[in-house]
Amino acid sequence: MALENAVLLKEPLIIHESMRYSLLAGGKRVQSMLCIAACVLVGGDESTAMPAARAVETIHTMSLIHDDLPCMDNDDLRRGKPTNHKVFGENVALLAADALLSFAFEHIATATKGLSSDRMVRTIGELAKCVGSEGLVAGQIVDIFLEGLSDVGLEQLEYIHIHKTAILLEASVFLVVDDILDVTKSSQELGKTTGKGLVADKMTNPKLLGIEKSRELAEKLNSEA
Amino acid sequence: MALENAVLLKEPLIIHESMRYSLLAGGKRVQSMLCIAACVLVGGDESTAMPAARAVETIHTMSLIHDDLPCMDNDDLRRGKPTNHKVFGENVALLAADALLSFAFEHIATATKGLSSDRMVRTIGELAKCVGSEGLVAGQIVDIFLEGLSDVGLEQLEYIHIHKTAILLEASVFLVVDDILDVTKSSQELGKTTGKGLVADKMTNPKLLGIEKSRELAEKLNSEA
Repeated sequence: MALENAVLLKEPLIIHESMRYSLLAGGKRVQSMLCIAACVLVGGDESTAMPAARAVETIHTMSLIHDDLPCMDNDDLRRGKPTNHKVFGENVALLAADALLSFAFEHIATATKGLSSDRMVRTIGELAKCVGSEGLVAGQIVDIFLEGLSDVGLEQLEYIHIHKTAILLEASVFLVVDDILDVTKSSQELGKTTGKGLVADKMTNPKLLGIEKSRELAEKLNSEA
Repeated sequence: MALENAVLLKEPLIIHESMRYSLLAGGKRVQSMLCIAACVLVGGDESTAMPAARAVETIHTMSLIHDDLPCMDNDDLRRGKPTNHKVFGENVALLAADALLSFAFEHIATATKGLSSDRMVRTIGELAKCVGSEGLVAGQIVDIFLEGLSDVGLEQLEYIHIHKTAILLEASVFLVVDDILDVTKSSQELGKTTGKGLVADKMTNPKLLGIEKSRELAEKLNSEA
């Protein structure tokens, strides 16, 4: 998905090296693949979803860098390699993740082709909400405060899982599908019942999109990749 | 500027308390005031610039929270009060700043009224670039690596200053002015020569906007506030 070319090695070198170290570490890329798959599923062009998919991968990566820091999970290894702060130091890792978060929004805003600006603004707003204090960060916070407690219930575990993983995943699918539909709704060829019905049934509200189904699709794509 | 109402106290409580603690700590708000002033200067409505101004203030605040962390400047006090991590812990402070950065983009995308989506996408793209690895973060990185060196030149100090402060400040002025002009260019009342000339002369490229002039205006506004 050309993440290699999205963040180039330029000055200041160390921050871009640090960003690229984690971004190109070869994770599963489930979320970004699902983003592209959803786009193709409803008849959209893969290239339309590519910047959004890269943005989701970038946000996922930045959250891992911050999660691994000593003040969080204090992990030395990630995907079998030393964590970002072990290689570049805590200060560089902290800032590299900040830069990656900011880059995600820059990339959607500047690299997306074939979508109306109206939809891009909505996409950016929704994605930002999914990352923030009621999304990804909410999941991380609850995770921190439940750590060490013995009476953690299924409800709390579900909350963490939904916020740390599924929200970003659901958002990426929903947004791209929503965007593509809007763009293609006047096109007879692409507006076929299959795609429309699928979306009307399952994707009108991202909260209702089956997480299990998403995971199945992601795993299928992952094994095919 | 109603930052109080922009980030409400909701669940999870601790993250929103932490975000509000620093956001409402009563800084100088030079950058956001300049953003609004630039808008009014060219005949725009203050309310149009308000979400962008709040976003700039939010980004400034998040950069201070991360700057104060033990792995960065390790500061215990900020604006005469204990720093965010001293009150809420390093992990919460780290995540609160992440949530603030994400909120800035969400807020521009969802709360801006009276601008075309085209301009909003451009604004988001430019602002994100100003925060990232070639903007604010670049300034922080160079700052870190020059620390302790004895032969720091004027050029390097200027680089840090421009990237840590002026880029965000310039961007906020340029973007709002640029946006307002685009919106009002067909309006005879607002398209007067004064505003047009001022922008043509000084603001067509944010890099060329006099930083000294910006600071003078900011200081004037600040003393009036």
